[in-house]
Amino acid sequence: MSTHPFDAALTLQPLAEGRWQGRTDPGWANMVGPFGGITAAQLLHTACIDPRRAGEPLALTVNYAGAVTDGEFEIEAAPVRSNRSTQHWTMTQRQGGQVCCNASAVFAARRPTWSAPELAMPEVPPAAQVAIEHRPTPVAWPRRYEFRFVEGGWPDFRNPRELSDSRTVLWVRDEPPRPLDAQALAAIADVFYPRVFRRRQRVTPAGTVSLTTYFHAESVALAAQGNRPLLAVAHGRRFTQGFYDQSAELWSDDGHLLASSHQVAYYKE
Amino acid sequence: MSTHPFDAALTLQPLAEGRWQGRTDPGWANMVGPFGGITAAQLLHTACIDPRRAGEPLALTVNYAGAVTDGEFEIEAAPVRSNRSTQHWTMTQRQGGQVCCNASAVFAARRPTWSAPELAMPEVPPAAQVAIEHRPTPVAWPRRYEFRFVEGGWPDFRNPRELSDSRTVLWVRDEPPRPLDAQALAAIADVFYPRVFRRRQRVTPAGTVSLTTYFHAESVALAAQGNRPLLAVAHGRRFTQGFYDQSAELWSDDGHLLASSHQVAYYKE
Repeated sequence: MSTHPFDAALTLQPLAEGRWQGRTDPGWANMVGPFGGITAAQLLHTACIDPRRAGEPLALTVNYAGAVTDGEFEIEAAPVRSNRSTQHWTMTQRQGGQVCCNASAVFAARRPTWSAPELAMPEVPPAAQVAIEHRPTPVAWPRRYEFRFVEGGWPDFRNPRELSDSRTVLWVRDEPPRPLDAQALAAIADVFYPRVFRRRQRVTPAGTVSLTTYFHAESVALAAQGNRPLLAVAHGRRFTQGFYDQSAELWSDDGHLLASSHQVAYYKE
Repeated sequence: MSTHPFDAALTLQPLAEGRWQGRTDPGWANMVGPFGGITAAQLLHTACIDPRRAGEPLALTVNYAGAVTDGEFEIEAAPVRSNRSTQHWTMTQRQGGQVCCNASAVFAARRPTWSAPELAMPEVPPAAQVAIEHRPTPVAWPRRYEFRFVEGGWPDFRNPRELSDSRTVLWVRDEPPRPLDAQALAAIADVFYPRVFRRRQRVTPAGTVSLTTYFHAESVALAAQGNRPLLAVAHGRRFTQGFYDQSAELWSDDGHLLASSHQVAYYKE
């Protein structure tokens, strides 16, 4: 039995078919409640481990509807429609009967056909040539990842000055290293600190409202990546009256796009 | 009472609180079933017209779970969580009791605070200087829009040769012109023909599986755009074994990003 912190956080107790009980893990805590990436992984996981599930993850949308408080939660996961090549699921996380997160996922059977990349991986130095940057942080979850920033590292809060872009490029992997799977990739998709911190070089209340991740690689390709760092790229598009969007790409170290991920987040002040 | 084809398609009969009956409209037909954009607009609309709805559209995700067949459908829309500044909804479209689409939306109250663009609108000639390209097509929905392609126009199916990118830039508006609102924007987000047609310059079975749109402008800003053409930009990232993703931006003609939209689609052969 793995005792990796990621697998520990994904340990869920079955209550009934498609109903699971979990517990927030202090090791994955964010400013308020858990890291959004671990919640996304938990929600996806309930469908992945359900015997009714057919196919591999293709799309995941998580709506962070209300704060998750420390303690127990329940997830209900149900297939809503199964077709020849896709299966659609909805997942709902509740605490005390109230919805914290509502989510949807699509699973798909891929078939050999014409395939081609379009976006190319940015040219960056290999992970081994980029220093690991641990950051003293009051929150726990960043300690679950190894960060090697190529561009757009941790904001310099001592020197707040507005920047014209919010791009970040980094090599990232689980800490301690863990072989990649779709659940881990779903969590890593939310590994970027809020883009508004980067633009403004200051911390304000901020958090993901809705997160969508598209998976471009099946479990065999993810397993081939093993526990080596992924290249992760993120940028914002527009920050307007308390909400902004972010897009991100997660690349294997040999240049294949494993996932693209998009989110809208709130910010204050 | 408006008789615009878009408003006609959004005419829904109330069955009970949060339950609506609609009918597919031949004027919005795609190869199989209706244009995905009109379905997205109908789903969003059920929340917009519900008296329980608070705030303006921020995010919309539509999962096309199964083919919509010509005829009647029912949409169930329910608020799942309301907070001080956001309200979360789920919407489900059914035919004969079976789920065709499951969707989620977030509505938000925006507040004056630090705001800034990041992505800049591409430099293109104004709409008036770009020719309208009507295309003889066996499907109805493209006749509901005015297309002025700046780059990446209709594929040349007579001369199929693989292209290295799938970028399309066009000025687009409803045909006949109609003042912009969030529902119309949600439909326009799906106005790009499948990116795989562009890459391969040939038609194969293809369709949207999951579509997510983030709104960056409120109704006042959308109304200010009026019925003038929007600049719409789309590209793909990776095409793998039957599925690809697309990202798109929709700009006001004075250079503000009104929405960003992402989708994963299937293709065959």
